Amino acid sequence: MTVDLISVDDVEAAARAIAGSVVRTTVLPAAWAPGLHLKPESLQPVGSFKLRGATNAVSRLTPEQRARGVVTHSSGNHGQALAYAARVYAAPCVVVIPDTAPKIKIAAVRDIGAEILMVPPSRRAAEAQRLADERGLTLIPPYDHRDIIAGQGTVGLEILADCPDVEVVLVPVGGGGLASGVATAIKASRPDVQVFGVEPELAGDAHESLERGTLVNWDVADLVRTSADGLRVPLSELTFAHLRARLDGIITVTEAQIAAATARLVQRSRLVVEPSGAVATAAFLFRRDLLRQGRTVAVISGGNVDPAVLSVAATA
Amino acid sequence: MTVDLISVDDVEAAARAIAGSVVRTTVLPAAWAPGLHLKPESLQPVGSFKLRGATNAVSRLTPEQRARGVVTHSSGNHGQALAYAARVYAAPCVVVIPDTAPKIKIAAVRDIGAEILMVPPSRRAAEAQRLADERGLTLIPPYDHRDIIAGQGTVGLEILADCPDVEVVLVPVGGGGLASGVATAIKASRPDVQVFGVEPELAGDAHESLERGTLVNWDVADLVRTSADGLRVPLSELTFAHLRARLDGIITVTEAQIAAATARLVQRSRLVVEPSGAVATAAFLFRRDLLRQGRTVAVISGGNVDPAVLSVAATA
Repeated sequence: MTVDLISVDDVEAAARAIAGSVVRTTVLPAAWAPGLHLKPESLQPVGSFKLRGATNAVSRLTPEQRARGVVTHSSGNHGQALAYAARVYAAPCVVVIPDTAPKIKIAAVRDIGAEILMVPPSRRAAEAQRLADERGLTLIPPYDHRDIIAGQGTVGLEILADCPDVEVVLVPVGGGGLASGVATAIKASRPDVQVFGVEPELAGDAHESLERGTLVNWDVADLVRTSADGLRVPLSELTFAHLRARLDGIITVTEAQIAAATARLVQRSRLVVEPSGAVATAAFLFRRDLLRQGRTVAVISGGNVDPAVLSVAATA
Repeated sequence: MTVDLISVDDVEAAARAIAGSVVRTTVLPAAWAPGLHLKPESLQPVGSFKLRGATNAVSRLTPEQRARGVVTHSSGNHGQALAYAARVYAAPCVVVIPDTAPKIKIAAVRDIGAEILMVPPSRRAAEAQRLADERGLTLIPPYDHRDIIAGQGTVGLEILADCPDVEVVLVPVGGGGLASGVATAIKASRPDVQVFGVEPELAGDAHESLERGTLVNWDVADLVRTSADGLRVPLSELTFAHLRARLDGIITVTEAQIAAATARLVQRSRLVVEPSGAVATAAFLFRRDLLRQGRTVAVISGGNVDPAVLSVAATA
């Protein structure tokens, strides 16, 4: 199967589209880990890089599409991001949320001003599609979409601009949208820079897919074992094609390594991060034997962490 | 008594001196508090704005002075900042620390590579002076110094550059170095922008000094009551003269307001902040009746927080 990949031109267009709506996060040196720099996407208004892709996708809708509105069925960071992006463009937004979701996530989406539809978990995708059909809403998925990947790729452009002597870039992999975009942005002009995806050993489906050269889906019951709740999702054919063509490889980290990296980011870089956001830092700290020994940027994908988890990280 | 104030030229010279050694922190919108923007100096390598002044002061030493080294007797954020700045310039650094200081603070200074001298609290200043005399070290105080004030003022230049439509700037006041510098930087070109100092009600010595038009020193036993441990210090004649000439006023906040602001910054802006760092945000949230109703930037001065305090803020 041949998949048409996005190009760095798409990422550059996304950068122009989202400028002003999205924070240009500063690359921070980690004084406690020589050689390590951090790209803290946890500091975006909704607490994750997802705002980049969502803003780019909404920006590319026609005025008519925007007036009708958008819908998604992600209750996590993408749901919040789409709600925020839609508000920037004054577009109606519906987020379909499983009725099992934590109240705090529902409140976060509602606070931004989106309409919420609560449904049984198994009905999420179908209800979102029904809303798209009946109300003419545009369905914006969390990663399986060219405009989303191009938006996430702007992280890579900023790393190159702010840190031209970078040698290694580490990016968390869940659905693969962020890693697809970042690898596209970096490899186009700097094929010499290593770009690795990082995922939890307990959700190592992307690692296995790259090793086997074919998209492997893990059982949901396996994926939920990791504390990195943002990385419990499968790749799509579109993201798998990007990762296979453009990543140097995927590194896996253990749950103990994720917890240790989370604690150090909180205590020593004074960043509130979620476990998913800490996996790239964990790879630098514990799997550096797999990397070139040069200036490294680890992308911190998000900071929407459970208060109890943060409390543990603060005192670990 | 006439005191010679620093000028915006001094601040601009400091900006050139520290560029590259200090993080240019991004101004972040606080999506949860419309109108509020944050200047997160907690993201500096040593976790506070103090790195700016310390770096500027070391940069202005002669090669001979740098070769002999620097000394200070602040065991808090300035001690860490000076140690870091000295390392950048390969200058020896001694930090005189009271033997009652928490181990975590001592370890932080030692990790950066400074020499540590432990003394009884009452001997701090005398021992630092003795080292300066005997070893030819240059004493760099935490705020009562023109180069320090000029360095801290670079925060103000960056706010104007990144947020030209700002109408109100809120700055924590302890010794007054940061507020002196920021007010100098902003009022020179934008006298229309309101610049307020903020301090805890329980350490309201600067507020009382401005009200009475004369420098008032509170008893140390009173100052230690506030949770904002970075703001338990008196003004100097030099900083008082700057604040009196250039601030629009000083606002005080309660301990409950400081705790609430700390919790919101942790939970909703995903920033690890210390109580001292949260006072400006507390003024926006709870004393907004005293401010013009326009775009406001609150300076978050630092993030070196006790793990137990952070744990409370995470779950409050």
